[in-house]
Amino acid sequence: MGSNKPKAVKIGICGLGTVGSGTVNVLQRNAEVIAARCGREIEIVQVGARRDNPACDTSAYNVSREIFDVATNPEVDILVELIGGTTVARELILAAIENGKHIVTANKALIAEFGTEIFEAAARKGVTVAFEAAVAGGIPVIKALREGLSANQVEWLAGIINGTGNFILTEMWEKGRDFGEVLKEAQALGYAEADPTFDVEGIDAAHKLVILASLAFGIPLSFDKVYTEGISRIETTDIQYAAELGYRIKHLGVARRRNEGIELRVHPTLIPEKRLIANVNGVMNAVLVKGDAVGPTLYYGAGAGAEATASAVIADIVDIARTLEVLPGQRVAPSGFFSDSHCSSGVLPVDDVETAYYLRMSAHDKPGVMSQVASICSDEGISIEALIQHEPGEGEDHVPVVILTSRVQEAKLQSAVRKIEALDSIAGAVTRIRVESLG
Amino acid sequence: MGSNKPKAVKIGICGLGTVGSGTVNVLQRNAEVIAARCGREIEIVQVGARRDNPACDTSAYNVSREIFDVATNPEVDILVELIGGTTVARELILAAIENGKHIVTANKALIAEFGTEIFEAAARKGVTVAFEAAVAGGIPVIKALREGLSANQVEWLAGIINGTGNFILTEMWEKGRDFGEVLKEAQALGYAEADPTFDVEGIDAAHKLVILASLAFGIPLSFDKVYTEGISRIETTDIQYAAELGYRIKHLGVARRRNEGIELRVHPTLIPEKRLIANVNGVMNAVLVKGDAVGPTLYYGAGAGAEATASAVIADIVDIARTLEVLPGQRVAPSGFFSDSHCSSGVLPVDDVETAYYLRMSAHDKPGVMSQVASICSDEGISIEALIQHEPGEGEDHVPVVILTSRVQEAKLQSAVRKIEALDSIAGAVTRIRVESLG
Repeated sequence: MGSNKPKAVKIGICGLGTVGSGTVNVLQRNAEVIAARCGREIEIVQVGARRDNPACDTSAYNVSREIFDVATNPEVDILVELIGGTTVARELILAAIENGKHIVTANKALIAEFGTEIFEAAARKGVTVAFEAAVAGGIPVIKALREGLSANQVEWLAGIINGTGNFILTEMWEKGRDFGEVLKEAQALGYAEADPTFDVEGIDAAHKLVILASLAFGIPLSFDKVYTEGISRIETTDIQYAAELGYRIKHLGVARRRNEGIELRVHPTLIPEKRLIANVNGVMNAVLVKGDAVGPTLYYGAGAGAEATASAVIADIVDIARTLEVLPGQRVAPSGFFSDSHCSSGVLPVDDVETAYYLRMSAHDKPGVMSQVASICSDEGISIEALIQHEPGEGEDHVPVVILTSRVQEAKLQSAVRKIEALDSIAGAVTRIRVESLG
Repeated sequence: MGSNKPKAVKIGICGLGTVGSGTVNVLQRNAEVIAARCGREIEIVQVGARRDNPACDTSAYNVSREIFDVATNPEVDILVELIGGTTVARELILAAIENGKHIVTANKALIAEFGTEIFEAAARKGVTVAFEAAVAGGIPVIKALREGLSANQVEWLAGIINGTGNFILTEMWEKGRDFGEVLKEAQALGYAEADPTFDVEGIDAAHKLVILASLAFGIPLSFDKVYTEGISRIETTDIQYAAELGYRIKHLGVARRRNEGIELRVHPTLIPEKRLIANVNGVMNAVLVKGDAVGPTLYYGAGAGAEATASAVIADIVDIARTLEVLPGQRVAPSGFFSDSHCSSGVLPVDDVETAYYLRMSAHDKPGVMSQVASICSDEGISIEALIQHEPGEGEDHVPVVILTSRVQEAKLQSAVRKIEALDSIAGAVTRIRVESLG
């Protein structure tokens, strides 16, 4: 290289929120080391933002209040979409692709819901779309799945991919606090939105899971097929019983390949406390991937935050900068697979999913109840792997009973639960939480 | 792509040991998914091996007993060096580079000791050298450092990068067994060699640390400058005291950037038990990297084994296959940096290293001893952060005293220890183990 350096890569950044300002700041601070790794300079030729952000200094740049200017700016090689949402962002990206720009985005919802359309448009124009920052913030897990583990058939993956949810469950576990109370704190700390639905009901995690599963298995992005369950019904009492059994409760996105098809599901999960991923606490993220050759590998780090996410955005810019002049076939495919080689497995309906289960019920404290429950389980082919039954408190005639089952098909479990709930000796509903050994 | 697929990439594999046979097996079993990700087929056009290995079937291939045939075979695009050692392997790789072959190798000793020469030869010929499998087996940590974290100034990294050592320390901790006893078991299990020096004295870890540090900081490969201390002097009693203080003892490779230069060191280390890396057990590996933008990230998985290592070897082959026809500047640089941009920081001598310390001594059970020790520490500017002193056993007049110190420069610590050892009231040598908070 030396004096014969290739020309700078020219980027346009759209959006100056948390991630946008973090990206500008890291590009400024680490310009030298980034250029040394990339082999060329990265030059911000335009910033498109409705308003400035005092968290970063854009006085040296060409700032436009009209973000679509960036998509049509003939100088721009790469459009960096950091505005979020799925309406304007989609139009912006499609317009930029039409104009021959490469795309870097941190937009998980957009990729999960409209990724197929965007990848197809990019393939037609011979540009690439990179979205490392869309899943697990700064952790280079998309690169790991798409490149680092390219020799593997992925068997399954499981991720703590929503920091807000993990913060809430960690606080509930460490301090015995209730969900509602911790949620309020998370909102005060800025970890959770005023409307926390996306985080606590698992929608954000489902967006990310769909992206990971697509890269792992070569299946189409299929957000509408994910089974999604949030953490809002987890009680501290379940966290404590789980601990008594040697488990932690984490909110996981799980994708598993079976002969019949792919399981795609987001739900609270009991994990053996000895597993590394069971010890990922606070707002941190981690993704555990099981490949047939490599075995289990785990990727851990910050799942959000200005500079952590910027780290992933810039890594994508560097990757594209390196391959700016090459043919599309010499780049990594956005979906991880060349399009005529996709896996044909479909996503299984939730009734066909198989997991072990944690069941908690309130049972009348009299002889014979447990044998009735055991007999219902046995009829559905469910083994009881562990059981906790404490003495009733003073003056109480019902006792909590906790059961860990063997792996069972969802439909059979639901059938057994309906029968248990119908017993006179069982009061109220049975609490159900899935269990994964992740072994 | 479709029917217009690029031609297959042609590889020659040298060496049919554990990793060589694993590579052949994974390439055969997962040929379809690998080609789908790569965009082209991978074709083994020659195997060079002194003898066959019943663990894999090479009957369909052109097998040569003369491995240098592979380096001169005009059909070969990529030579995959899996013979190990630093003499023939070096000659083989240099010969292959002269003949315009790209190189994939799993050889940590060769890269750590002769990497600079090899990279320079490769740069002259416009070919690339890939060595993901040389560090931490199947974990794509080299890719993470070189590409995934390219936006970051790496502040430090710390790795459990020798599975044998971690197995031994894990057994000592979990079962209270002695080093010698567990080493014998590790040898019987095939985890440790008949001569275990490379593993237990830290040389293997030093090879890997040198490679990681070079990629992280852009410093030259400098194996001769690593401070290296093994685990053979760790006693179960220290593991137990460490646990009492809330720490685990792990054998770490640590590289840290300071204003004055780079610390490069391999040694047993107390780590707070709450850190994820403190809970990486058995033969597993993990590398924790602290970047200025991304914060801490951790990469975990199998550090050895036929197919785990093959996973990394094949990922390198896929990467090179994608960029076979591009210019060298459009590939990732083997060292992670374009050569005129290397960091100028030197490696610090061990006397300048700064860490906290665990000290264990045998003190006469009489008044005043601890104040003498505290005064020596204070004179050297060392604070005592924690202290354990148990009652003496029946009929004993000496008690073990354990101290955790503040961070201190190595030279000052050694000076304090010499003075403590000279006290009449202290019997024998002071046991010293470094402490890292990894916060």
